[in-house]
Amino acid sequence: MPQGHIAPAIITLLALLLYTVMGLRVGRARAKYNVPAPATTGQADFERYFRVQANTLEWLPIFLGSLWLFAIYWSDLVAAAIGLVWIIGRFLYMTGYSKAAEAREAGFMIQALASAVLVFGALGRLIWLAVAGG
Amino acid sequence: MPQGHIAPAIITLLALLLYTVMGLRVGRARAKYNVPAPATTGQADFERYFRVQANTLEWLPIFLGSLWLFAIYWSDLVAAAIGLVWIIGRFLYMTGYSKAAEAREAGFMIQALASAVLVFGALGRLIWLAVAGG
Amino acid sequence: MPQGHIAPAIITLLALLLYTVMGLRVGRARAKYNVPAPATTGQADFERYFRVQANTLEWLPIFLGSLWLFAIYWSDLVAAAIGLVWIIGRFLYMTGYSKAAEAREAGFMIQALASAVLVFGALGRLIWLAVAGG
Repeated sequence: MPQGHIAPAIITLLALLLYTVMGLRVGRARAKYNVPAPATTGQADFERYFRVQANTLEWLPIFLGSLWLFAIYWSDLVAAAIGLVWIIGRFLYMTGYSKAAEAREAGFMIQALASAVLVFGALGRLIWLAVAGG
Repeated sequence: MPQGHIAPAIITLLALLLYTVMGLRVGRARAKYNVPAPATTGQADFERYFRVQANTLEWLPIFLGSLWLFAIYWSDLVAAAIGLVWIIGRFLYMTGYSKAAEAREAGFMIQALASAVLVFGALGRLIWLAVAGG
Repeated sequence: MPQGHIAPAIITLLALLLYTVMGLRVGRARAKYNVPAPATTGQADFERYFRVQANTLEWLPIFLGSLWLFAIYWSDLVAAAIGLVWIIGRFLYMTGYSKAAEAREAGFMIQALASAVLVFGALGRLIWLAVAGG
């Protein structure tokens, strides 16, 4: 039974749960603003709820890919801690953007910085391992 | 050579093949309903084909992430069996939604339930491993 | 410390960096063509930039999933080499599609062929392992 990587595994599931909540809020916004499926455009309030989920989906491959490469090749706990910052940023993005398009920026910057640390941290580590014959 | 996790690996590729078929159907619907790229909105029949693929993409990180965490930390075969249910649900969703927006609901519920079992099963297992000093 | 799979790990991060560049170009196109968030439709030049990123996102689960299954169950270096072809195809797709919808096709075909080799290569290998009692 594998015992490693439990911290990034739990962070992964918490991030996916927050992302699921964003999807449920899109469903509620469909009813509230009267935008039946399959439409996703045409009503600006609905579109903000929709874009919260869509933008998070756009970033999930970057976040989850770099989280795991950082965790596997460098440090489980550092990766999980940065992942927690990403989740907090995405939560603020969700609550901000559903109020107004301008209010999405603080949360967006937090998650973007967390993602950049994960991507460039993992890339630097991997290049170091490759060059050092690791 | 790794010998483990062959069952969830095959399920992953089957799910990605079904998802690829959804993408090919979007391409065919572009021609049939005369919606040239880059447009993705404006014609309701096309939009249903488009949303089949888009909604499945929205759920793929949840499904694939939880499938693998369930398989790695708990059981390959149980994860693969639930993954097969997810694929069946997504197939019914695809065939239903391309006919009418209302006909997407049975398949959607099946894949949502399968995803929920994978997510909460994996999360419960991981918390148990963390608390039990696993 | 794990030493394996460094080549597909670096390819993964390079692919995610190219994908991030596509996202930054969407942000710039929002300003250039005056399409403020949350809108994603209604201006054809912007929509081509948006679809470059969106279509790449649509293919990322197929590419990353099959890249890693091919690498883990068959060959790191072959997977990474095909992954490099995918990145080149996606780069040509990005530069072509931002000029004109028709100019996206060569790059699209290259990445589609690379993805197909990864998916069917990994699937064939896994079935062989399962049947051969691997």
